[in-house]
Amino acid sequence: MSEVYAARRTRLRERCQASGSAAALISRPANVRYLAGAAPQDSVLLIGKSEDLLVCVGPPGDRPAEGRPDEALRTHILPGAGGDPAVAAADLAAGQGGDSLAVEEHHLTVARHRAMRSVVPRLRLTDLGGAVEQLRVVKDEEEISCLRIGAEIADQALGELLESILVGRTERHLALELERRLVDHGADGPAFPTAVATGPNSGRRAHRPTDRRVEEGDFLSVCLGATYRGYRCEIGRTFVIGTSPADWQIDLYDLVFAAQRAGREMLAPGAAYRDVDRAARQVLDSAGYAEGLPSLTGHGVGLEIDEDPQLAPAAMGKLDACVPVTVEPGVHLPGRGGVRIDDTLVVRPEADGGPELLTITTKELLAL
Amino acid sequence: MSEVYAARRTRLRERCQASGSAAALISRPANVRYLAGAAPQDSVLLIGKSEDLLVCVGPPGDRPAEGRPDEALRTHILPGAGGDPAVAAADLAAGQGGDSLAVEEHHLTVARHRAMRSVVPRLRLTDLGGAVEQLRVVKDEEEISCLRIGAEIADQALGELLESILVGRTERHLALELERRLVDHGADGPAFPTAVATGPNSGRRAHRPTDRRVEEGDFLSVCLGATYRGYRCEIGRTFVIGTSPADWQIDLYDLVFAAQRAGREMLAPGAAYRDVDRAARQVLDSAGYAEGLPSLTGHGVGLEIDEDPQLAPAAMGKLDACVPVTVEPGVHLPGRGGVRIDDTLVVRPEADGGPELLTITTKELLAL
Repeated sequence: MSEVYAARRTRLRERCQASGSAAALISRPANVRYLAGAAPQDSVLLIGKSEDLLVCVGPPGDRPAEGRPDEALRTHILPGAGGDPAVAAADLAAGQGGDSLAVEEHHLTVARHRAMRSVVPRLRLTDLGGAVEQLRVVKDEEEISCLRIGAEIADQALGELLESILVGRTERHLALELERRLVDHGADGPAFPTAVATGPNSGRRAHRPTDRRVEEGDFLSVCLGATYRGYRCEIGRTFVIGTSPADWQIDLYDLVFAAQRAGREMLAPGAAYRDVDRAARQVLDSAGYAEGLPSLTGHGVGLEIDEDPQLAPAAMGKLDACVPVTVEPGVHLPGRGGVRIDDTLVVRPEADGGPELLTITTKELLAL
Repeated sequence: MSEVYAARRTRLRERCQASGSAAALISRPANVRYLAGAAPQDSVLLIGKSEDLLVCVGPPGDRPAEGRPDEALRTHILPGAGGDPAVAAADLAAGQGGDSLAVEEHHLTVARHRAMRSVVPRLRLTDLGGAVEQLRVVKDEEEISCLRIGAEIADQALGELLESILVGRTERHLALELERRLVDHGADGPAFPTAVATGPNSGRRAHRPTDRRVEEGDFLSVCLGATYRGYRCEIGRTFVIGTSPADWQIDLYDLVFAAQRAGREMLAPGAAYRDVDRAARQVLDSAGYAEGLPSLTGHGVGLEIDEDPQLAPAAMGKLDACVPVTVEPGVHLPGRGGVRIDDTLVVRPEADGGPELLTITTKELLAL
C-alpha cells in the first residue's frame, strides 16, 4: 500500500508546484488519511519541499486513529504537550528552505492560521483549496473494493432486519440493532448515524431516530451504511408495514422510484452533475413536489460519507468513470410521512456495463 | 427554559460590549446550542446590536439537531441553497448598524472569514476567543441535573454488563452492547465512542474496540458515558477477568486507585487546575510511571465531552463551585495492559459536603 500513498503525494506535489507552492500543509483528517494511510488525532501532514512528514502531538500508536500510517513516511512527534502540529509543520516547512506553504483554508481555523503566521512570519501562506478533495473524487479499484464490501455488509444488515418483527419497536432500537448487525458482519462501524423513520417521520433526510414505535400502516424508511477500511457507503429503502399499502403510499413510492431510476440512468462518464440531479428532480417536480425537495439528490462517497461531487442544481462539473455516488431522491409530506430510495453506485462506461450498483437490496415496495 | 437562554445571551452581550464589540457571531455548534437551545446543522447565531437571530440554511425542523431552538429567538432562513449562514449573519449584523463583529476565530475557517470580509468589507471582524466556552464552565442546577441523570444511566448500563458472561466476547460487541443499554435506559445516545479494552489493550485512553476477545486473566477496562438532553458524562472502570488477579494487577490497580483518589480529594472551589492534576500525577510519577502518562488527568464535561477546564500540568486557572470534571488517571504498560479509573464529579464547597460524585459504580477491583 505504501506506493499508493507515495503516488498520491506525488500527484499533490505536482499540483502544488504547478500553482507555485513548493510545500503544502494538509490538516483535514480525511485528506491526511488519504495521503498518509492514517490520520492520528490532531495530526497534520506536511508535503515538504525535501521530505514529507506526518506531524503528531504524540506517538501515533497512542492516538485513536483509523488506518495505519504509511511506513515509508517519517513521523515528527511534537516535543511536550499542548503544541499545535500545524504551527510545528509550518516551522518544519521553513526549515526545509521553503518560502511558501499552501494550506487548506476551508479547514484551517483563523486562530491556527494566525499562530502559523506569527511563528514563521517569512513563510507566505497560500490557499491549497480543495486540491486533495479533487484527487479523492476518482477512486482506484482497491478503494472501490472497500466500498463494495461495505455495501454488501449494509445489504446483509438490512436484510436481516426485514426478517424480524418490526411492529411495536422504536426507531431508536431499530437503528441500534442495524448498527450492531453492521459490526457483526465485519464493518469498522456505521458510516454515519443510522436513520430509522416511521410514520410521519418517514422520508425525512438524516432523520434522528426517536422513541416512536412502528405501527401498522406506517411507511418505514431506513438509511444506513457501513464503514469498511475507512470507506463509507450508503443505502436507503422505504417499506410499508402491514399487508396492503394505501393508494397514496403506492403512488408516492412509484413516483420516488421513478425519480431515483431516472437519476441512476443518467450516471455515465461525461454526464454533468446537474443533469443527473435534474433527471431525478424533474420527475418529482412535474408531480407537484417542487417545494421542500432537498438541495441535492446525490453525492460522492469515500473516506467521508458526503464528499465531492454534489449532484445538485447549481453543481459544476462532469462525472468521470470510477466515481462512486449516491442517488437518493425523496419526498416527505409533513404530517403524513414519505419515501426515500438511496443507492450507492460507481460510474462506469457503457462498454463496462454502465453504472455498477453496489447496494443490491430490492427496490420493490415490500409490505412487512 | 427560554429565560435561561436569554440570560446567557445577555451575559455574552455584556462581555462583548465590555471589549468593544456591539455584536458577535457564534459558529461553534455546542456554543450555539448553549445560547439558542439547539444548533440545527450549519446554523450560526448572531448576537446582534438590536436583535439576536438564529441563522439557518433551511427550516430548523428539516435539519438534524439535538434540542429545540428557544422560541423567543427569531430564526432567519437563508433564501436558496448553498449559502453560508456565517456570511449572511455578517450581512445582517451590518444591517443592524454595527461596525464590528466578534467571531470565534478558533472555530471559523480562514475561507469563511475571508468570505465574510469580502461580502461586508466595512464590518471590522474581531476575535471573540473562548468567551462562550468560559460562560459554559460553571453549570446551573438544571445542567447538573442532566449530567446526574446521564451518570445514573451509564452506571446502570455498566452494572448490567458486569452481570453477563464476558469471556469470549469481543471488545467491539461489548461496546455495542453498552451503547444499546445506554439508549435502553433513556440516553439520547452515547456521549462518545464507548471504549472497551481487554488484555494488552486495557488501560489505553480512548481505545477503539477491536475484535480481540475477553480472556481469563485479562484486565478489562471500560469507558462509557451517556448523553442526556445534550449533556455528556463519563465513567471508566477496570476489572479483572477470572477468580484471582495476579500480584502485578493488584499492585497496579491500587496505585491508579490511589492516584485517582488523590485527584478527587483535591477538588474544591479555588483549587488550581494544575494542582488537581499534580496530586494524581505525582502518585504515578513516584511509582516510576512518569513516562507515557497522558497529557491530562481530567477535564470539564457538559454539552461536549471534553471541554474546559483541562486538569493538566500547564493549565492556568482555578476551579469554581458547580464545575463538573472528570478525574481519570491511568497507566498502560505496552504489551501487558493497564488500569484506568474515571469518575465525573461536580465541584462543591466543603460546606455542601465537598465534591459530588455522579458516577457511583464501585471502584473496588472486581474479579468477574
